[in-house]
Amino acid sequence: MQRKQHLFIPGPTPVPPAVRAAMVRPLIGHRSCEFASLQRSLVKKTKQVFQTENDLFIFTSSGTGALEAAVTNSLNPGDKVLALITGQFGQRFAAIARQCGAEVEALEFPWGKPVDVKKVTERLVQGPQPKAILLTHNETSTGVVNDVASIGALVKNTPVLLLVDAISSMGAMDIRTDDWGVDFMITGSQKAFMLPPGLAFLSVSAKGWAQIETVRPRSFYFNLEAWQQSGAQGFSPWTPNVSLLFGLEAALDQLLAEGLEQVWARHGRWARAVRAGLTAMGLKLVAEDEWASNTVTAAYVQNGRADELRATLERDFGLCLAGGKGELSDSVIRMGHMGYVDELEILGSLAVLELGLKRQGYPVHLGAGVAQAQKLIYQEG
Amino acid sequence: MQRKQHLFIPGPTPVPPAVRAAMVRPLIGHRSCEFASLQRSLVKKTKQVFQTENDLFIFTSSGTGALEAAVTNSLNPGDKVLALITGQFGQRFAAIARQCGAEVEALEFPWGKPVDVKKVTERLVQGPQPKAILLTHNETSTGVVNDVASIGALVKNTPVLLLVDAISSMGAMDIRTDDWGVDFMITGSQKAFMLPPGLAFLSVSAKGWAQIETVRPRSFYFNLEAWQQSGAQGFSPWTPNVSLLFGLEAALDQLLAEGLEQVWARHGRWARAVRAGLTAMGLKLVAEDEWASNTVTAAYVQNGRADELRATLERDFGLCLAGGKGELSDSVIRMGHMGYVDELEILGSLAVLELGLKRQGYPVHLGAGVAQAQKLIYQEG
Repeated sequence: MQRKQHLFIPGPTPVPPAVRAAMVRPLIGHRSCEFASLQRSLVKKTKQVFQTENDLFIFTSSGTGALEAAVTNSLNPGDKVLALITGQFGQRFAAIARQCGAEVEALEFPWGKPVDVKKVTERLVQGPQPKAILLTHNETSTGVVNDVASIGALVKNTPVLLLVDAISSMGAMDIRTDDWGVDFMITGSQKAFMLPPGLAFLSVSAKGWAQIETVRPRSFYFNLEAWQQSGAQGFSPWTPNVSLLFGLEAALDQLLAEGLEQVWARHGRWARAVRAGLTAMGLKLVAEDEWASNTVTAAYVQNGRADELRATLERDFGLCLAGGKGELSDSVIRMGHMGYVDELEILGSLAVLELGLKRQGYPVHLGAGVAQAQKLIYQEG
Repeated sequence: MQRKQHLFIPGPTPVPPAVRAAMVRPLIGHRSCEFASLQRSLVKKTKQVFQTENDLFIFTSSGTGALEAAVTNSLNPGDKVLALITGQFGQRFAAIARQCGAEVEALEFPWGKPVDVKKVTERLVQGPQPKAILLTHNETSTGVVNDVASIGALVKNTPVLLLVDAISSMGAMDIRTDDWGVDFMITGSQKAFMLPPGLAFLSVSAKGWAQIETVRPRSFYFNLEAWQQSGAQGFSPWTPNVSLLFGLEAALDQLLAEGLEQVWARHGRWARAVRAGLTAMGLKLVAEDEWASNTVTAAYVQNGRADELRATLERDFGLCLAGGKGELSDSVIRMGHMGYVDELEILGSLAVLELGLKRQGYPVHLGAGVAQAQKLIYQEG
């Protein structure tokens, strides 16, 4: 049969029918009153998800665009930046800062482990103050969550700016932009927001704005002063992806109707079920429970043929998993479990993963992983 | 979360994306050349599925409409009809014939069992010849398949007409309309054809046409002579559901691209996996393997609270199962497994069914049913 694509990658995630339906509405002009009213409403609702009172912008770009927007607007060439790196996406954030001319000091932690807050504290006490810290909230390459609150507490009452990539966690986890003192908070549309790729989101604190005023703009598209001026009128400075904004309205309404706390709790349940299932299959998880992500789980495939396994799963069962990045290349599978996915799909995906492992000669006991995931779901009701 | 609806009922079944996309194409006039070309192509392809060279009509109606079309065009009031009844849908077929004024002799078989061909043979040898036999190929209320080939062999070279309801099996099973001597073969769009409800299909043999000519038409909408006249021009006598016909084109193309034999084999594998899973959960199947349907499986829920279980499954997991009909009311669940469903969904549905049973206090061993279904799928590749 023509295979369904079951998206258990860490984005894009399945798009709910109401969101799909919204996206095919007839277009409206992006300088119309109706558009301004739509954008104002979207910004207000997205701020609830971000838990922020700061300014918030919706870019027509991928999340990487919003990362660049944060960096290029807040740093002058030669500015010192401390990049806290726990995996591939921490590396990318640092690379963007380098590209912008910043002097990047990388503080790296082993893949699979989170940022060690003690080491960051030591570094801040001992060395010269950086202009900014770059931090990945949810490191998608390892399924590790970093403690943004603690890093934020270190710099909140200092001139040091905090830039946080929450692309693969915002909407799925309790992220307190303002309480945690995040000056630039970034996410994208194709993860817990349940939309196709194409939109990115950035919030900017008052401390962030004070810095922006000292920076000579280098990007035209991502010039935040232009976005602020247009945003005050309810517009985007350049032509926005109107269809995705229609979809965003439906997606935010769905998230808020379920209740953000319920959404976060559900992602926690899904993650625990997946972790229990993978462990019972005999796979070793990359991240320990204490710092495990609620949206993506990486697991070692001990025979080292993870990419072959993924190809089998996609071809034979329509199950799409992500592969290992960088040093984990071909040795792990990464399973996204966020957004519009339910128990039936999660249990089904574990069941076909077992079939795929068995076909590869892996010593798996069919049903064992599913049973453990079922137990978790049953207990947590 | 806003629950997905996982349709494991015996229709409607999930609609593939290509079919959905086809259905939103701009409408065309139903007296246009383009329409005539479309309808001719659809009739030709549907005949492949029916394995027939007979005339074939596509009604804008439910399957029940096509059952009535077959009956009302082939029987005069007072005509004697032998209705072979193995469940709820056999009863409905008989009721339609009675409503049309036929004199219906019901030959009933226990629910869960198929038509006993010996008893039909005896009846035909001993009693007066009926004008027609009514037979349900796939009795959806019990998940039993009847032996159309053997009944067909009894009447093929006699004046007795054979009317067959294949609403819940056509497209999913090897049904040989012409070889088996079926004069009126009926199906609907919302089962193995992977379409929404709204279309029905009827093929008519030369023997059927000879009889139609002797019958005074009673239905205007379903007057087959009108359908034949219009059909010869590539049209429908009355306004057809053009959007569903666009969808039918995409659905038939998908079935034929997979290959009908592969589609039938796949339905056999799904059915065996579901039956193995339900049995391993401790549920008793209504139909024995020998005459089990490839598209729907009925299973007793021994505590007799099948409808409560279904409500739980729908509310808590978005899994939609059908309930018991008639004498099986509230004592069975019926699971459809046809059309656009895959391994991941079938295994996932069994997994959440286990959770629902356990919540109801049923002594289920979580994962046991899934494991047996996985084994079947693994073995059958």
